[in-house]
Amino acid sequence: MVLVTKITKLLGIKHPIIQGGMQHVGTAPLASAVSNAGGLGILTALTQPTPDDLRKEIIKCRAMTHEPFGVNMTFLPALRLPPYKEYAQVIIEEGVKVVETAGNNPGEYIKMFKEANIKTIHKCVAVRHALTAQRLGVDAVSMDGFECAGHPGEDDITGLILLAKSARKLDIPFIASGGIGDGRGLVAALALGAEGINMGTRFLCTVEAPIHASIKQRMVEADERSTSIVYRPFRNSARVFKNKVAIEVNAIEKRQGVRFEEIAPLVSGIRGKEVFLKGDSDLGIWTAGQVLGLIEDIPTCHDLIYRMMKEAEGIIQKRLQNMVVT
Amino acid sequence: MVLVTKITKLLGIKHPIIQGGMQHVGTAPLASAVSNAGGLGILTALTQPTPDDLRKEIIKCRAMTHEPFGVNMTFLPALRLPPYKEYAQVIIEEGVKVVETAGNNPGEYIKMFKEANIKTIHKCVAVRHALTAQRLGVDAVSMDGFECAGHPGEDDITGLILLAKSARKLDIPFIASGGIGDGRGLVAALALGAEGINMGTRFLCTVEAPIHASIKQRMVEADERSTSIVYRPFRNSARVFKNKVAIEVNAIEKRQGVRFEEIAPLVSGIRGKEVFLKGDSDLGIWTAGQVLGLIEDIPTCHDLIYRMMKEAEGIIQKRLQNMVVT
Repeated sequence: MVLVTKITKLLGIKHPIIQGGMQHVGTAPLASAVSNAGGLGILTALTQPTPDDLRKEIIKCRAMTHEPFGVNMTFLPALRLPPYKEYAQVIIEEGVKVVETAGNNPGEYIKMFKEANIKTIHKCVAVRHALTAQRLGVDAVSMDGFECAGHPGEDDITGLILLAKSARKLDIPFIASGGIGDGRGLVAALALGAEGINMGTRFLCTVEAPIHASIKQRMVEADERSTSIVYRPFRNSARVFKNKVAIEVNAIEKRQGVRFEEIAPLVSGIRGKEVFLKGDSDLGIWTAGQVLGLIEDIPTCHDLIYRMMKEAEGIIQKRLQNMVVT
Repeated sequence: MVLVTKITKLLGIKHPIIQGGMQHVGTAPLASAVSNAGGLGILTALTQPTPDDLRKEIIKCRAMTHEPFGVNMTFLPALRLPPYKEYAQVIIEEGVKVVETAGNNPGEYIKMFKEANIKTIHKCVAVRHALTAQRLGVDAVSMDGFECAGHPGEDDITGLILLAKSARKLDIPFIASGGIGDGRGLVAALALGAEGINMGTRFLCTVEAPIHASIKQRMVEADERSTSIVYRPFRNSARVFKNKVAIEVNAIEKRQGVRFEEIAPLVSGIRGKEVFLKGDSDLGIWTAGQVLGLIEDIPTCHDLIYRMMKEAEGIIQKRLQNMVVT
């Protein structure tokens, strides 16, 4: 079975399942595996140290799949900004078909991508941001609820509300992000009005995810209570795996008038990357969503997507259909 | 159309929609209206000052509907405990068919109700609590996510996760509670594995809810960001309407080592009751869920339920069905 939605048609993919753009993880092996399984794989531009490395990764990914894949561009405030323009130029030159933008002020880049005939999906945590993105001309938005890994914003609005409200307010199609790990969540998202789903943490626990096996195992053993929100005092909340470092960060953050410098050594990006490389889950901060509570195994991307579509078929064709008495 | 589920069969109702047990609100006018519309109305036992008043309210409700309705019994820690046993005795003597229990240690009462052949639904905020309730012999549980009004527990697990996980772990049927205000949410809950839904805040904004019209209006004008969590420092979190009092309470709660006595005058139950009676939404603390973001009108209970079932039918029979290509 396939589910044909506005998103599968827009992106030219088989199943309405999109891999989340994950720093350090969104490389060719994972993205191509998701695309080969009928979803949309996503390379993360900034995982590549230079625009030229991104070009090599795109070429590598294209050698590993004939299906469409996308590239994520995340715009974050930083002292030294990455050469965003050059990354965008590579994406355009290499003929990538879909770009997922995230973070602040992507307007200029959305314009660039649109002119190059690339489909753009912008990641949002609030309906008001999605309406802005819609005005900027994006083709779709990804709505990220409170349960998601990474940055859910400061409003703490959960997927159930955010998606139902997006369905009422948006004209462009939207994707549900955060909290989805199986066929039940997929059908729920479609019922709420989404035209597809985004999965990050769930794809971290697949055979092809390029991270150490012991981190995948730690996630399988974890449950829905194994995440924590850090950076709340700095209004830059991020949901991460509740390891020793996250607990230490949360303790420091309880101090009145805490400054970011007090936690900076604990949360450095280099330490976070080491977690995935060395397989020690307490080496640094790494993002994970509440969907941990629904992750019980480490399948291939193909088996995961196949299983979800099978579950979704059963829910739509049997469970829900059988409840209806006209 | 009707949706026949394990819950509609268990409770002998037409639609899988149950009114939440709301203090000061769950009286005969609202409960009978919900039951007459094909859902399950719920009287709240402790809204009645004495067990004898509860008896009168049950008799009144029975005069207003021939359909089944239930009674909510909430067990909370208190210095002077209400005469729970006598309330339970009245429920049994008056032949009520369904009891919703909530709060701590309902085991003894569940046993009493079961012996009297009353169906019991216990309200839970965590799968581990639901498993305990299942062992105690309840007929169903109501799973209350982070987005709900009132007490969501301290784990902050959202409905998307809590419901999908409940479907995997529980043998008894469960109801989805929190964050549902329309047909989209109803179908999403059923897709996630629930056999019915519970709505509190949404039923507050109906013609029949026995509260001042200006409070209903304030809720229509509010959005999903109009709630706040109070009592977090006391590990008794409650989601309430974000009015002046809630903002003041949150400010006091930020003090290191805050004691409950410092906020007690602001959050008294008498002040909360005054809100509903006098129609001044800033008089005290009153519970409301994130579903505020989905409430745009004040229909009758009949019109609300009819509209939701119509939406649900469209989603199941058309939207989802049309996506499937086998």
